[in-house]
Amino acid sequence: MSYYFLLDIAIILLSTKLLGLFTRRIAMPQVVGALLAGLILGPAGFNLLHETDFLVQVSEVGVIILMFSAGLETDISELKKTGTASFLVAVLGVVVPLIGGFLAAAIFNTGTNAMLQNVFIGVILTATSVSITVETLKELGKLSSRSGNIILGAALIDDVLGIIALTVVMGMAQGDVNIWLVMFKIVAFFVLSGVIGYFFHKQFDNWMRKSKIDRRRFSIIAFAFCLIYSFIAEEVFGVADITGAFVAGLMIAKTVRCTYVTHRIDTLGYLFFTPVFFASIGLKAVIPEMNGDIILFSVLIVLIAILSKIIGCGLGAKLCKLPNISALRIGVGMICRGEVALIIATKGVSAGLMKEEFFTPIIIMVIITTIITPILLKIVYKDRGHEIVYAEDPLAERLQNRDHCEV
Amino acid sequence: MSYYFLLDIAIILLSTKLLGLFTRRIAMPQVVGALLAGLILGPAGFNLLHETDFLVQVSEVGVIILMFSAGLETDISELKKTGTASFLVAVLGVVVPLIGGFLAAAIFNTGTNAMLQNVFIGVILTATSVSITVETLKELGKLSSRSGNIILGAALIDDVLGIIALTVVMGMAQGDVNIWLVMFKIVAFFVLSGVIGYFFHKQFDNWMRKSKIDRRRFSIIAFAFCLIYSFIAEEVFGVADITGAFVAGLMIAKTVRCTYVTHRIDTLGYLFFTPVFFASIGLKAVIPEMNGDIILFSVLIVLIAILSKIIGCGLGAKLCKLPNISALRIGVGMICRGEVALIIATKGVSAGLMKEEFFTPIIIMVIITTIITPILLKIVYKDRGHEIVYAEDPLAERLQNRDHCEV
Repeated sequence: MSYYFLLDIAIILLSTKLLGLFTRRIAMPQVVGALLAGLILGPAGFNLLHETDFLVQVSEVGVIILMFSAGLETDISELKKTGTASFLVAVLGVVVPLIGGFLAAAIFNTGTNAMLQNVFIGVILTATSVSITVETLKELGKLSSRSGNIILGAALIDDVLGIIALTVVMGMAQGDVNIWLVMFKIVAFFVLSGVIGYFFHKQFDNWMRKSKIDRRRFSIIAFAFCLIYSFIAEEVFGVADITGAFVAGLMIAKTVRCTYVTHRIDTLGYLFFTPVFFASIGLKAVIPEMNGDIILFSVLIVLIAILSKIIGCGLGAKLCKLPNISALRIGVGMICRGEVALIIATKGVSAGLMKEEFFTPIIIMVIITTIITPILLKIVYKDRGHEIVYAEDPLAERLQNRDHCEV
Repeated sequence: MSYYFLLDIAIILLSTKLLGLFTRRIAMPQVVGALLAGLILGPAGFNLLHETDFLVQVSEVGVIILMFSAGLETDISELKKTGTASFLVAVLGVVVPLIGGFLAAAIFNTGTNAMLQNVFIGVILTATSVSITVETLKELGKLSSRSGNIILGAALIDDVLGIIALTVVMGMAQGDVNIWLVMFKIVAFFVLSGVIGYFFHKQFDNWMRKSKIDRRRFSIIAFAFCLIYSFIAEEVFGVADITGAFVAGLMIAKTVRCTYVTHRIDTLGYLFFTPVFFASIGLKAVIPEMNGDIILFSVLIVLIAILSKIIGCGLGAKLCKLPNISALRIGVGMICRGEVALIIATKGVSAGLMKEEFFTPIIIMVIITTIITPILLKIVYKDRGHEIVYAEDPLAERLQNRDHCEV
């Protein structure tokens, strides 16, 4: 057995924390530092660290913990209030990038099958990766703001729409995937989650109330439940595991010992798993062989990725009569693409739906949107504007305070 | 990517906790329940769980966290007081099992190269796996007792003696390992650790004193230091990684925010890593093809493994004029063999130093000593006898209290 994985973890922990503290000092979110750590150490930088099976699996647990923690901190009654807004933001935030990506690809890619291939580039641009935004909003203490809640809700719906779009395109290409079955499974997942959530929340809450003190078993069972739910979402219903983790978090949110559980889950995250997740995004980057067309395509796809979400999601927010500043914040919060876009792209290459030369521009797009989102978020949230902040939520308030003092 | 590893972890977390609570209810340490969980779920039981690369690496981090945590809770000045006793316990606790294992093997194994092969069986019996004992003593609140400290110190020295014995036998078999270089590296590791420890402890303590509050970075840097030290111990000095983790813990013990750091490390352990470690020991068990000789050998080797440590270590304790009850406790605390014995056995098979048919008895020996140690420990610690308990140590006291209330 090789012990180098211990060194990998140690290097990731130290470098993400060090660069995180540095970026915070220059008034950028710590998350940017963590991403830069991966870029600098990985193949695109000093080539000291590489993706291993272990790091991939640890980073998968990392993103699950991140989304579970986001669920634990989400006030579902607040999310319900933002329902219509989230839905409109999500739908327009999927349609506009889909068209934008299609048009950009159509300029560079012609020939047989080009139509479907170009639609596929559009599909890659639809999936928002909300984890970076969640982490940044937590840092800024704005996760419980109205725009924060709309972003969370929209990202959830966006995820589902992205899965549907991917399924439809894959189905059109292969002709052997039953689209209606896939759609049925997605609907079944959310219906079942509602039913399970209703009973589990009550049972778990009652069980915890029987004890007068905090007990390790509460955290252990909550975390095991999250892992099982993520697994079932992915393997049984074909929904992303991170969606399962988020929903599991929602089910446990607002139970009597939720604060205790959230603290323990957060410790598990920051002390091992989430730094690996953020660093591993940077590790995916390689310096590609570039020609003029690919460079042009890269620039175009990055611009469209950024603008299409700001315009699409912003439009959705404006349709709900939100003020301009909120529409901008929501649009910016949805810019970030991440692992979902990369997973879709990988699937596309192996299914012959995407030319390999387009893979590097997609990676560049993911990295730039990931780095730029926290920076832009910080800028647009600087002026508080007319934003409603739900500071009366005690959990959110406590988490905000903690993020300020205990870093 | 397969997502079954999420389910594996969830099953391990739930089963170890459930069986742990059950064994506690019937007045046995929780650790026994965790081991039984692995046995029941693994190939020897319902065959639901198997060792994977991921589980092996997670359980490696688990045992590192366990030993790091043990180091953090160890009072080095107390360990120094037990120096002579620990040394005598360790030396006699290595010599007696070495002779016992050799004699047992000599009955069943004759022919060419039998001499060295039989010595090798003796070597396997030398290595105490202190992690189960540490966990049990923590649960019993006896880790800071005089016998607890002697056991910890002896296990540390025992580890080194085991490595030397293994190196000598491997060297005799292969003729290409420089024994003096290996010995030099081991000595160099401990000398260097003394020097690094002296400076690091001071620097780390001063750095933490500059901050008025607990900060995440303290835990992150402490844990990263532990991982790096484990790695260097293993890869550079040829000392076991768990020895490195323990020494790293000693270096950070008694610093100003050690309590905060210890809590965070413990959370990381019980919420993910240590359950996997304990379960994975059970997962190693398979039901072997048995014949009369192998059954006899298995029974004999288990008896010798247990008695040789009680007699050897107990004799060492008596030489230091400890009361009978303490000698018995120390002997019992050193019975447990674990991953080190399995690693040595695996190396032996691949080097042609051990017949494959002896591998199953060794696994049986490891499992029985692992299960029997916490049960016997609980029995011999029931009567407090004349034992000195260092309850004035505030960290140990707090940890003892925590283990009683927060389970």
